[in-house]
Amino acid sequence: MSADRLSATFSALSDPTRRAILARLALGETTVSELAKPFKMSGPAVSKHLKVLERAGLIERGRDAQRRPCRIATGALKTVDHWLETYRRLWDERLDRLELYLQQVQAQQKKGKGRGRHDR
Amino acid sequence: MSADRLSATFSALSDPTRRAILARLALGETTVSELAKPFKMSGPAVSKHLKVLERAGLIERGRDAQRRPCRIATGALKTVDHWLETYRRLWDERLDRLELYLQQVQAQQKKGKGRGRHDR
Repeated sequence: MSADRLSATFSALSDPTRRAILARLALGETTVSELAKPFKMSGPAVSKHLKVLERAGLIERGRDAQRRPCRIATGALKTVDHWLETYRRLWDERLDRLELYLQQVQAQQKKGKGRGRHDR
Repeated sequence: MSADRLSATFSALSDPTRRAILARLALGETTVSELAKPFKMSGPAVSKHLKVLERAGLIERGRDAQRRPCRIATGALKTVDHWLETYRRLWDERLDRLELYLQQVQAQQKKGKGRGRHDR
């Protein structure tokens, strides 16, 4: 996926209504009119969001001209997941370093306590 | 994290230059002037991108007034990772179903071949 496609995906995800539409579609494919109901939005308003999601590769539309059911297309989300991989490694490393640091502090404390006993 | 914060994070990530800045910061913290070099951008242009990243919780700035070093803040990215979890399950399930389907097809083919041998 090109940088522009990834940018389009992130841009499409930056809207809470579009993320809510995706969350609804994660439960199963549905039509535009069914989608519009819980959002209290007009059909055209929902259609506009769907176009943005479709252009970003986040959803697919069925061929049935009457219903044009929508479903999630996982490709774009997988690319986001793949993009995150670098950063996931980063916070894992930070956790490892933190754990190492805590172990050292605990070891120091134990040493300190040991010395305390001998001093008494 | 509120929906608005997640929206701000996705919006900040929708720009390729900002993603490139993050990728640079994944290697270690740095100053604005060091950051600007490989991007062939002016200091103020980089600063503008950094402000967007900072507001979205993607980076932190050091307190040193002169240098104000930038580093990645992993909190916002972790929230994106957490948000992706629902969808990750979705494509895992789809893979499971595909695998099951392929096993059924293979079983059918084996049966077909078996019958073929007896027919000959």
